[in-house]
Amino acid sequence: MAKGTPLCVGLDPRWEALPLAIRAAYADTPAGRAQAYEEFCLRILELAAPEVGVVKPQSAFFEACGPAGMLALLKVMQSARQRGLFTILDAKRGDIASTAEAYAEAAFDVFDADAVTVSPYLGRDSLTPFFKAGRSRGRGVFVLVRTSNPGAGQFQDLATGGRPVHEHVAEAVEAWSNEHPGQAGCGDVGAVVGANSPAELARLREMMPHCWLLVPGYGAQGGTAADVRVAFQERGRGAVVNSSRGVLFPYRPDATDWEDAVAAAITKAKAELPAVS
Amino acid sequence: MAKGTPLCVGLDPRWEALPLAIRAAYADTPAGRAQAYEEFCLRILELAAPEVGVVKPQSAFFEACGPAGMLALLKVMQSARQRGLFTILDAKRGDIASTAEAYAEAAFDVFDADAVTVSPYLGRDSLTPFFKAGRSRGRGVFVLVRTSNPGAGQFQDLATGGRPVHEHVAEAVEAWSNEHPGQAGCGDVGAVVGANSPAELARLREMMPHCWLLVPGYGAQGGTAADVRVAFQERGRGAVVNSSRGVLFPYRPDATDWEDAVAAAITKAKAELPAVS
Repeated sequence: MAKGTPLCVGLDPRWEALPLAIRAAYADTPAGRAQAYEEFCLRILELAAPEVGVVKPQSAFFEACGPAGMLALLKVMQSARQRGLFTILDAKRGDIASTAEAYAEAAFDVFDADAVTVSPYLGRDSLTPFFKAGRSRGRGVFVLVRTSNPGAGQFQDLATGGRPVHEHVAEAVEAWSNEHPGQAGCGDVGAVVGANSPAELARLREMMPHCWLLVPGYGAQGGTAADVRVAFQERGRGAVVNSSRGVLFPYRPDATDWEDAVAAAITKAKAELPAVS
Repeated sequence: MAKGTPLCVGLDPRWEALPLAIRAAYADTPAGRAQAYEEFCLRILELAAPEVGVVKPQSAFFEACGPAGMLALLKVMQSARQRGLFTILDAKRGDIASTAEAYAEAAFDVFDADAVTVSPYLGRDSLTPFFKAGRSRGRGVFVLVRTSNPGAGQFQDLATGGRPVHEHVAEAVEAWSNEHPGQAGCGDVGAVVGANSPAELARLREMMPHCWLLVPGYGAQGGTAADVRVAFQERGRGAVVNSSRGVLFPYRPDATDWEDAVAAAITKAKAELPAVS
């Protein structure tokens, strides 16, 4: 992986947490917030690009700013691409096939994402349009398998056939990934697996040996570097570990040295995580 | 329900299916399509508003046009509200709590939707922000329970504790709905249940006696008026039956009388479905 680290910087701009130095320059309106998010994320990209290979913009925060927010997201995606970063658009979409085609078009054509996150609840035919569109463009898809939020188990952990629902999803994701194997031993369908439980993460890595794992929950959400070690294949490969709040906001909004704090947080996360060779 | 019918007109603009009379006026670019979608949907709203009480714009088709598409969606939502229509934003969002807050803000504040559809895979804490935001604004939420697509059963029908996963979701939705009961006997959390299997629909209505049901799959997706009858409470109440393609595109793109065809399709669907009294 580029830059020798599995660290992915999540771009989750939150108005209340933005440095005051940026927030003060814009109106607290949807359009003003959108401009502030763009400025903040472009600055983060500048700080992150020499250090990491992957970024993950979270669509929700931009959508909350309406059309102006989508324009800001577009500019952030374009800037990331220009800097040679691999972009994962975190959108968690999922709908019936003919609608999923439109979502895939939005992700891969409009926003030009290298990969997009999708939700599996509607089953295979809701995901196929993403796989198909991704394959025709050399892009990838990450399917939610086991998420990192406190209530994730309510439906994902229901026992069925002696194992939890999310393991059925994992089995399907491994099969989908094997439909289109890549050169690095992983296919173009990956899995989102939270960093909360090392035992669960290890089991899911075992079930999906040919899948890229996108691991949220590291840092601010509680997962430690030790917790995520089991997600990797040999030599630190096969997993992308995301940190959003931990890297974006390791300072008080009134800090004047917030950029130094971001750079230090990236350095620290890289040092904690295994190197990729 | 307003207008005495459970019919909901789904606003799923598809470039290839649009009347040529509209398509010819715009460039086949994201921004051009967005303008065409806006013109088409506003014309549909004009035709539908005297006949139905509810419309359901599908976010995906607008998102596929980028920022210009979101602006078109905003205008369509505003026009629907000005015409007194109840709007269900079909977005099927779902993410961890702090992100779900941003999605809820997008749905209820930016797009000013009366209700939004959400996906349950991440569990209760991913939905609570939608319930909370909806309740503070007098809006509602529809949770996907059993969808209408061919592969819906892959994960939704996995047997767990003697019943399918989607019945566990149904049980949770009924409980969530009862947290905030409304005057009409239904709470502010409803369920999306496909029209494909009358037996399944009947069972889910029985399990969710206090929930609004949003029933897609009627019309172009194969569900008949007879199939959806079991979704209703007494006197045609408690369910919204959506038709998108069947109402939007009952003509060839080169038809010059496409508006008559839309009006006739709405009249036919209303006549087939039970009246609400």
